[in-house]
Amino acid sequence: MNQIPHPLAGKPLELADTLRSGNAWKIRLACGYMGLPVTRRTFDIVQGDLETEAFARINPWRQVPALLTPEGQWLAESQAILWYLGMGTPWLPAGRLEQAQVSSWLSFEQTQHMHAFAQPRLLIHLRRTAQVDDPAMRAWREIGMKAAALMDAHLAGRSYLVGTTPTIADIALYPYTSMAAEGGYDLSGFAHINAWLARMRALPGFTPLIEAA
Amino acid sequence: MNQIPHPLAGKPLELADTLRSGNAWKIRLACGYMGLPVTRRTFDIVQGDLETEAFARINPWRQVPALLTPEGQWLAESQAILWYLGMGTPWLPAGRLEQAQVSSWLSFEQTQHMHAFAQPRLLIHLRRTAQVDDPAMRAWREIGMKAAALMDAHLAGRSYLVGTTPTIADIALYPYTSMAAEGGYDLSGFAHINAWLARMRALPGFTPLIEAA
Repeated sequence: MNQIPHPLAGKPLELADTLRSGNAWKIRLACGYMGLPVTRRTFDIVQGDLETEAFARINPWRQVPALLTPEGQWLAESQAILWYLGMGTPWLPAGRLEQAQVSSWLSFEQTQHMHAFAQPRLLIHLRRTAQVDDPAMRAWREIGMKAAALMDAHLAGRSYLVGTTPTIADIALYPYTSMAAEGGYDLSGFAHINAWLARMRALPGFTPLIEAA
Repeated sequence: MNQIPHPLAGKPLELADTLRSGNAWKIRLACGYMGLPVTRRTFDIVQGDLETEAFARINPWRQVPALLTPEGQWLAESQAILWYLGMGTPWLPAGRLEQAQVSSWLSFEQTQHMHAFAQPRLLIHLRRTAQVDDPAMRAWREIGMKAAALMDAHLAGRSYLVGTTPTIADIALYPYTSMAAEGGYDLSGFAHINAWLARMRALPGFTPLIEAA
């Protein structure tokens, strides 16, 4: 995928993230796959880093990730950053229908998928303020299992979500799907999802959430 | 905006929608502004139309809008359909940063804006199962007022959300912002939003939610 030089090769990229944010991991995954070095500026939500005046200048929406682009502009929303990085590369097909299908999966991830996986992971695994079997956690997983079933059905007979090669849509869906067990999910029944997760991990440049010391 | 022929001019477009869906209205707004005729196939959620096997073939995610493209494929998610319609026109700038900024606002609308406006409108105005002052409705409006404040601050000194001409980002934010009062919102304090709403209504090809008989 990386034979042609990336249009952003050699340009400075800085990422505002947190250590374990799945939304920010998408951006580090993209940079790794695309061979783009990125400088991390890591914030701590629990310490209140996102509520400062300084952070409001990075992102008035007070969320990570945000990317400082070579134009000197901070760009918010993981899907927009993935779009910025993917344009003009095989990670974002140029055709009208395929590009719209990528947009459709990016929207699916944000509206039907992400919260149902991120919330139980946050409360059970990271903050440890909820138990796996709490009714609220079960309710999230009911929503998330529906999203997983839709993904699994779509991936039957396909290697990637759109077209025949990986796109930013696959990158967007990877983090929270791959961390599902941290929120008490059992996705072992979804064979197509598990094959796709393994395929994503095997691609050159894969970046883990936490780099080995 | 419509001096150059639209790349989709003359091609058949069919929209699966409901009568009063704000997400589907975005698509009719886009088609109107862009001078593209679109055939509506209108479903009724209350009658269970979205739960049929026939509808699962239109959109397995069981949501409107969905667009039947000239390629014969159903495309889901309002932001993806807007992208499909906007590509190659002034409604979607071609530059990397501007295109990513459009994507950022599309994501903002879906994740930080839409539900907070759509839910009180649905329950207070359409289904009439909630009262304006119910605590749950107040809670939605607290979220929505924050989103409105961010939009208003961004629109200070700008005519449109990205660049200097209207884009699909403006189309995406228009419906639920303009219908806010139906959910008990008072946006009268947001002068920049109100000027922008008036600007959108004044553009050639503006399509109302319900066409006059």
